[in-house]
Amino acid sequence: MNQRYFEDVKVGDCFGSNSYKVSETQICAFAEEFDPQAFHLDAEAARKSIFQQLSASGWHTAAIAMRLFVTGELQFSGGAIGLGVDELRWPHPLQAGDVVRLETEIIETRGSKSKPGYGIVRMRNVATNQRGAAVITYIATALVLRQPG
Amino acid sequence: MNQRYFEDVKVGDCFGSNSYKVSETQICAFAEEFDPQAFHLDAEAARKSIFQQLSASGWHTAAIAMRLFVTGELQFSGGAIGLGVDELRWPHPLQAGDVVRLETEIIETRGSKSKPGYGIVRMRNVATNQRGAAVITYIATALVLRQPG
Repeated sequence: MNQRYFEDVKVGDCFGSNSYKVSETQICAFAEEFDPQAFHLDAEAARKSIFQQLSASGWHTAAIAMRLFVTGELQFSGGAIGLGVDELRWPHPLQAGDVVRLETEIIETRGSKSKPGYGIVRMRNVATNQRGAAVITYIATALVLRQPG
Repeated sequence: MNQRYFEDVKVGDCFGSNSYKVSETQICAFAEEFDPQAFHLDAEAARKSIFQQLSASGWHTAAIAMRLFVTGELQFSGGAIGLGVDELRWPHPLQAGDVVRLETEIIETRGSKSKPGYGIVRMRNVATNQRGAAVITYIATALVLRQPG
């Protein structure tokens, strides 16, 4: 995989990812550790809830999107340091058996004033399930290394 | 713990949480699963990075904040359905041995137009470490049940 520096991306560039299949066991394990609400823990309780089906914690969906980003087409040399996230939404719940992919579009690039060796990249991220429904969308801002020298 | 409906909270109300201590093992395990970047996986690599110390994935920090929210003072009857998150920032990294607490302030309440039995609550969340430094801040928007009848 080609590792990129700040200078190697421009507004409008799009990057894909591998796919990730999530199981009921994984949904429940994440929820037990971080978001123990009945509709993330128990299929029967979820059926009686607004979700109508066992659904992943939104933070589990976010974590899966991060995995798809880190292992995807857009690899920054030295990694991507998260500065913040805006406009995070969960248009459709992530459910057991779903297969997720991520698409990342560069929407802004600028130099870092406080860190001369770095640039700041803003990216629109959309993760979709196997039916093409978005399970999470967000804008991530990250600090990435400039080309050395 | 007193479970609340939409009508039971008002703008300006603040709620606390338990504390949560994060270990190096937990930081590395989360990163291996969801954010496999060297500065989240390996103390030596982290020392050479901008973090200078092993630091949790920002999504791990977010997941811990969710656990503190769900198990904290503000318990909504039937749970809180996440609609979105805005202005998520990580002012200081979360590091091994840190002990985190969450404070949640209600900043907006309004009825749901599409779901008559529900209200929408916006909350400012700030998680701080044992030195009082903020490790994550964000505004969460959630759908919560109205009082029945």
